[in-house]
Amino acid sequence: MRLSHYFLPILKETPREAEIVSHRLMLRAGMIKQQAAGIFSFLPLGKKVLDKVCDIIREEQDRAGAIEILMPTVQPADLWQESGRYNAYGPEMLRIRDRHDRDMLYGPTNEEMVTDIFRTYVRSYKDLPLNLYHLQWKFRDEVRPRFGVMRGREFLMKDAYSFDLDYESAKIAYYRMFVAYLRTFQRCGLTAIPMRADTGPIGGDLSHEFIVLAETGESEVFCDRAFLEYDTPGADTDFSDAEALSDLVAKWTTPYAATDEMHDEQAWGALSDDTRISARGIEVGHIFHFGTKYSEPMGAKVTGPAGAQVPVSMGSYGIGPTRLLGAIIEASHDEAGIIWPQSVAPFDVSIISMKVGDDLCDDAAEKLYRAAKEGGLDPLLDDTDARAGAKFATHELIGIPVQIVAGPRGLAEGKVELRARASGEKRELSLDEALNMLTAGALR
Amino acid sequence: MRLSHYFLPILKETPREAEIVSHRLMLRAGMIKQQAAGIFSFLPLGKKVLDKVCDIIREEQDRAGAIEILMPTVQPADLWQESGRYNAYGPEMLRIRDRHDRDMLYGPTNEEMVTDIFRTYVRSYKDLPLNLYHLQWKFRDEVRPRFGVMRGREFLMKDAYSFDLDYESAKIAYYRMFVAYLRTFQRCGLTAIPMRADTGPIGGDLSHEFIVLAETGESEVFCDRAFLEYDTPGADTDFSDAEALSDLVAKWTTPYAATDEMHDEQAWGALSDDTRISARGIEVGHIFHFGTKYSEPMGAKVTGPAGAQVPVSMGSYGIGPTRLLGAIIEASHDEAGIIWPQSVAPFDVSIISMKVGDDLCDDAAEKLYRAAKEGGLDPLLDDTDARAGAKFATHELIGIPVQIVAGPRGLAEGKVELRARASGEKRELSLDEALNMLTAGALR
Repeated sequence: MRLSHYFLPILKETPREAEIVSHRLMLRAGMIKQQAAGIFSFLPLGKKVLDKVCDIIREEQDRAGAIEILMPTVQPADLWQESGRYNAYGPEMLRIRDRHDRDMLYGPTNEEMVTDIFRTYVRSYKDLPLNLYHLQWKFRDEVRPRFGVMRGREFLMKDAYSFDLDYESAKIAYYRMFVAYLRTFQRCGLTAIPMRADTGPIGGDLSHEFIVLAETGESEVFCDRAFLEYDTPGADTDFSDAEALSDLVAKWTTPYAATDEMHDEQAWGALSDDTRISARGIEVGHIFHFGTKYSEPMGAKVTGPAGAQVPVSMGSYGIGPTRLLGAIIEASHDEAGIIWPQSVAPFDVSIISMKVGDDLCDDAAEKLYRAAKEGGLDPLLDDTDARAGAKFATHELIGIPVQIVAGPRGLAEGKVELRARASGEKRELSLDEALNMLTAGALR
Repeated sequence: MRLSHYFLPILKETPREAEIVSHRLMLRAGMIKQQAAGIFSFLPLGKKVLDKVCDIIREEQDRAGAIEILMPTVQPADLWQESGRYNAYGPEMLRIRDRHDRDMLYGPTNEEMVTDIFRTYVRSYKDLPLNLYHLQWKFRDEVRPRFGVMRGREFLMKDAYSFDLDYESAKIAYYRMFVAYLRTFQRCGLTAIPMRADTGPIGGDLSHEFIVLAETGESEVFCDRAFLEYDTPGADTDFSDAEALSDLVAKWTTPYAATDEMHDEQAWGALSDDTRISARGIEVGHIFHFGTKYSEPMGAKVTGPAGAQVPVSMGSYGIGPTRLLGAIIEASHDEAGIIWPQSVAPFDVSIISMKVGDDLCDDAAEKLYRAAKEGGLDPLLDDTDARAGAKFATHELIGIPVQIVAGPRGLAEGKVELRARASGEKRELSLDEALNMLTAGALR
């Protein structure tokens, strides 16, 4: 993309309303615009990162055997009356009346609707296990939306729902998502630690939150340092191997880890001082195994192997991609701006022409831009006539992993400069080296 | 995908509520499920086709220089009060009151919000032209939703908005979208004819609908046969060449073409009998040039070259991808089911094992499946134990372009059968030929 043709509205001043760093940086980098309290537009740069995060989520859901569907945002109230949650949900649920005076709502979650889909079509245990997920906008009418996309009212959620014949097989479905979540967050450049959680309004008796450690986290968390040494399960994990999954989950749930709510002072006190990490955390995912809480009242039953009708055992599994953007920035930024992990960076490389109109600069920048495209990279070419300082500030702020600077002085000697955003490392290389590197799709 | 692990709830009976063929086939093929009047879930097969259609739309928007953003579904009422449409819009607008008693609405379209984005950030004519688009769910509370996704209440829309300094340059922006739309529909396997249209509640003085001819179309349309001979503009179209664009649009707007509403009996009568096509049509896109209708009341101005503040000249450009699914099916089906154009087919090839459990069949089907994946194809492997007749009926119904049938009798002679869904053509080929064909990613 050529910056002169792009829409990247950088803010020079820090917006007053932003209380936390991710909110500030997303506004300043032109990623989002607030449209109402807790409701945001994603501008081009924000949309690109959101897409990358969603792609990673999808790949890992698919790998774990979940199947993508897409449920609507507006739901009929009667489904929620069946489950008993319509009255229970409270003012966070955005209730709507349509022109025929039917009670509707903007879905805050989809347990009821997906259970309705299941009971409409599935009759036999032979069609299990089944896990259906979707990525769709949700609305929760928070009393006080804040922290930008971290606690919005309209937010994107990936929610998956598993259906199994009995409690034990539903546990394996839960483990599949547990492992998929470890992989998902790791691929987004995050270290997320699973912590036993309260089940809240979803219900059930087995639940974990995935918590990213970040100084600016919303809540206090406590965990064993052992987690930091753990290797994330590989792409070759066999999601059909129940035993291997159980072992992985056992490993990741053995060391102490708890949110403030679930904290056990006694168990904590039993750990040695140097293993204890007491820190701030951000919740990025939440998984639940709630058995027949919805299938029973809603009549989602299958014929079991012995011929009897059995309500299915269910779980639900949520990640908020919009919130995840905020969490990634909270975990990865510096004074100058965002530092995107390569996997979710909106562009792979910034190519900065220092003097637009100068033949040498124009020519080199254009060649670098084409080489990057040829190498399968997604480059951002800064072909604007902004001042050098403003250009550097912009590219630092938006946090593209690598910048290649083409300036008249360097080019007179056939050289360009490569800057790594994360390390701050700068090195000179010849234009030819840079072109070869880009054509090869490499960035080192 | 292995069908035994997929969620493809085929209906044997034709659902009573479906009045038109696309609605019937989408329900029967397990693509959608109605959740409330005019509100649908997209099941896995429907979601896959929807994604393919959206990908084509995005590619053509990007090619024409539009930039993707993502605006929220819920909008504050005050933006619509500024434009004067809040009261004008009528009961089709889904009005919502949040917990703080603020008036909100579920966006039926986004002219106001995108104008707000523009006026927040853009100050100078130098940042023009600009075209921002998004793909987002809309809600229009139709009094009588019907015809499945063809006239739903919650529906997906791609809406693009162009901003230019003056009326004339906005016309070029309009032409860009005009040409992008021709390409988009053609790539979806459709012949869409641009017809001058009424501007309705969007306003403005230049507008075209893109109409697909189909026997089951919703309205009567009239056009010159010349359109059927026209070549769609190529992928190499230069969207920065205003003159070339003008010529293309002139060509595509010269022969007679009109919807019922805009029909001119006199001009029609002047055509020779054999050039006249009077047919049924389905609207699949609608584009508008409305100048300063929103920029003026909402204060979306830029500094022009001479230093004066100028309200920008705008257009908006809509395609409904969910509706497009219905239109594609209306235009391409037979007695047995859907016939997907290759470009939007949910899978590239069905591999049908006729006798699951038979070593020869299992082995051949598995090899074919792997060969297809190796060839970069997206295959659906029917590894279920359904009867032969049911299997054929399913694959005809869901309309995958090519089926490869691996049966015990053929395989005893080392042969499989290839069936082309559109032509009905069947031919035998050796298993090795089939494997080579798939590995090469070819389907002929």
